[in-house]
Amino acid sequence: MQYFRLHAPHGGIRRGILKTPHGNIHTPFFMPIATRGAVRNISPDELRNLGAEIILSNTYHLIQRPGLAVLEKHGGLHRFMRWDGPLLTDSGGYQVFSLAKRRKITPDGVTFQSEIDGSSIKLTPESVIDAQLTIGSDIIMVLDECPPHPCSYEYAEQSLATTLRWAERSKKHFEKRMKQKRVSPTRRPLLFGIVQGGVYKKLRDQSVRALTALDFDGYAIGGLAVGEPRSIRNKVVSWNTALLPSDKPRYLMGVGKPEDIVDAVQRGVDMFDCVIPTREARHGRTYVWTKRKITSGNSWYSIVNVRNEKYKFDTKPLDAKCPCFTCKSYSKSYLRHLFSVQEVLGLRLTSDHNLAFYLTMMRELQRKKTPRSTEAP
Amino acid sequence: MQYFRLHAPHGGIRRGILKTPHGNIHTPFFMPIATRGAVRNISPDELRNLGAEIILSNTYHLIQRPGLAVLEKHGGLHRFMRWDGPLLTDSGGYQVFSLAKRRKITPDGVTFQSEIDGSSIKLTPESVIDAQLTIGSDIIMVLDECPPHPCSYEYAEQSLATTLRWAERSKKHFEKRMKQKRVSPTRRPLLFGIVQGGVYKKLRDQSVRALTALDFDGYAIGGLAVGEPRSIRNKVVSWNTALLPSDKPRYLMGVGKPEDIVDAVQRGVDMFDCVIPTREARHGRTYVWTKRKITSGNSWYSIVNVRNEKYKFDTKPLDAKCPCFTCKSYSKSYLRHLFSVQEVLGLRLTSDHNLAFYLTMMRELQRKKTPRSTEAP
Repeated sequence: MQYFRLHAPHGGIRRGILKTPHGNIHTPFFMPIATRGAVRNISPDELRNLGAEIILSNTYHLIQRPGLAVLEKHGGLHRFMRWDGPLLTDSGGYQVFSLAKRRKITPDGVTFQSEIDGSSIKLTPESVIDAQLTIGSDIIMVLDECPPHPCSYEYAEQSLATTLRWAERSKKHFEKRMKQKRVSPTRRPLLFGIVQGGVYKKLRDQSVRALTALDFDGYAIGGLAVGEPRSIRNKVVSWNTALLPSDKPRYLMGVGKPEDIVDAVQRGVDMFDCVIPTREARHGRTYVWTKRKITSGNSWYSIVNVRNEKYKFDTKPLDAKCPCFTCKSYSKSYLRHLFSVQEVLGLRLTSDHNLAFYLTMMRELQRKKTPRSTEAP
Repeated sequence: MQYFRLHAPHGGIRRGILKTPHGNIHTPFFMPIATRGAVRNISPDELRNLGAEIILSNTYHLIQRPGLAVLEKHGGLHRFMRWDGPLLTDSGGYQVFSLAKRRKITPDGVTFQSEIDGSSIKLTPESVIDAQLTIGSDIIMVLDECPPHPCSYEYAEQSLATTLRWAERSKKHFEKRMKQKRVSPTRRPLLFGIVQGGVYKKLRDQSVRALTALDFDGYAIGGLAVGEPRSIRNKVVSWNTALLPSDKPRYLMGVGKPEDIVDAVQRGVDMFDCVIPTREARHGRTYVWTKRKITSGNSWYSIVNVRNEKYKFDTKPLDAKCPCFTCKSYSKSYLRHLFSVQEVLGLRLTSDHNLAFYLTMMRELQRKKTPRSTEAP
């Protein structure tokens, strides 16, 4: 069965449709993050109203709380959190990077010391597949090691070898489970491999070739958004998308600022997730369109900090043309007031707006006909 | 013009309709609290969906933040916070009690030292009327002194004398403003006097007589819910409602637990406000019906703490018969999880439920035909 159909398969922005057990998603798309089974400050109803077609959650965190037994009792995360659309789950590979001080990598997998109760949590390629099947993910990510930046060629090479062995075990285990459970093609989740290899072209190319030989349903570009400069990130993305099969979706993990997403879409990436819109919202920083269209760099939007004194008497919304609930209803003055008196409604309203900004940006990119590179690859 | 129509004027529960510039309210009713222009965790849309007919805000706090100039720029609090229903504002009299260490009472008014920046805030009977007119309140409260409990007869007597002088000045100033602004009867806000006099019948009776002679649009019973036992509170409420004119609404300020509200409704009180439902919700404590009807004391409901370990696997909602969004969608297990991982969505969902409980309780009381006292007055 073909899960991905590309409307414009040759070069530039890849408009298409990705089919999952919980519905179709239009590419390129952005996934709001529900790390622990809830998007910070936002309800599933609000996500639907914002036009979100898919959300992302995290296997490592869900294993700890609420725990897989709780999710199994509910029949999966969808019913637990009342989200009936597509769901992608991270495997825990990012935590190999972000919780580097609390984990040990062995050939078999990764063992973490829980930051909650100090207990030991072991993830293997097989266990994270099983966990994601219990969670009920529509898109399952393999376990990988996300190395830091900078990282030596030797370390990147050795780490990639581990990641590739794990990818092979993941694919094998996933196919075994699908067979055991006799999952029909329409109910079958998608399994994504993750490209690693640091900032080294030889390793990146080797990673793509090895993964595509295993034939995953989609491919993530991992190991970026870990502190590398924008020019290096763009270069690595271009290497990877040039070599990845065009008939499979590509997901750039953890990226990024609006201009970073535009860069990557123009380099042939289809899927994104990032904490930036909701995290910035919690600090009162909101994204506002300054031009009618997406142009080069970050010149087409600005960041409005609603806590600023200058908005005290501003009766205008953040962005009069924004379709979000916040902009339809509230003035910058009211948002400033809510932050000033620490009413949590303020966080909800700015989160709602920033997610609307990101989702509107993706819809704009879906409409864009002529790709326009903002920078040489 | 008659602002209050009572369907059942003789004894027991007073079903009726209170007319205000922003709409009618069915009595008896409960007002969710939006102290600083937002109900904690809840949007105006959600309040409407819950069936809230009126909300309450606080003059003292609004004067400080966002300040009257900001509200004036927006044309009042209604537009600022996007609530188009009736609105009652406290005058700041409760802060005379709750911020006792930061204020000085003089014959002219009260001077507070701001808890935000140490600046001096002076409230007079006239200034709080003007502030509430700027806020755009539908129901304006006079400035009073709320004495503590216990409080000597001498202090209560002296405090009452101040409160009554202020009530007279308030009424005079309010009428002057209505005349100056040529406010039509349908746009005219209601002005409420506040009964004080501690726990002393002589003073309470004197207070009611003096206020009714001034002919306010409604009367609040003040000076309760400040730590006195339930039996004393019920006694004082009975003294006051026995003497207050039956054709004017009565408002018991700051009360209370569900059974306290039932007690007071059965003693002829029409209006309530209390922080309990939203404050308890923030600690995970939720109200759940255990019987089909309101009966004596607190035997008809229980308090479910969603943080409890025993709900870890509980796939049932808090209350299968509750009409709120939370109960229609989520399990106790999910609520427990949200509190466990400190997702603010949890606070929103429990606040939503507790407000639904209080508002459902009021609708039940409106339907009750035979009043049933839970305790001898």
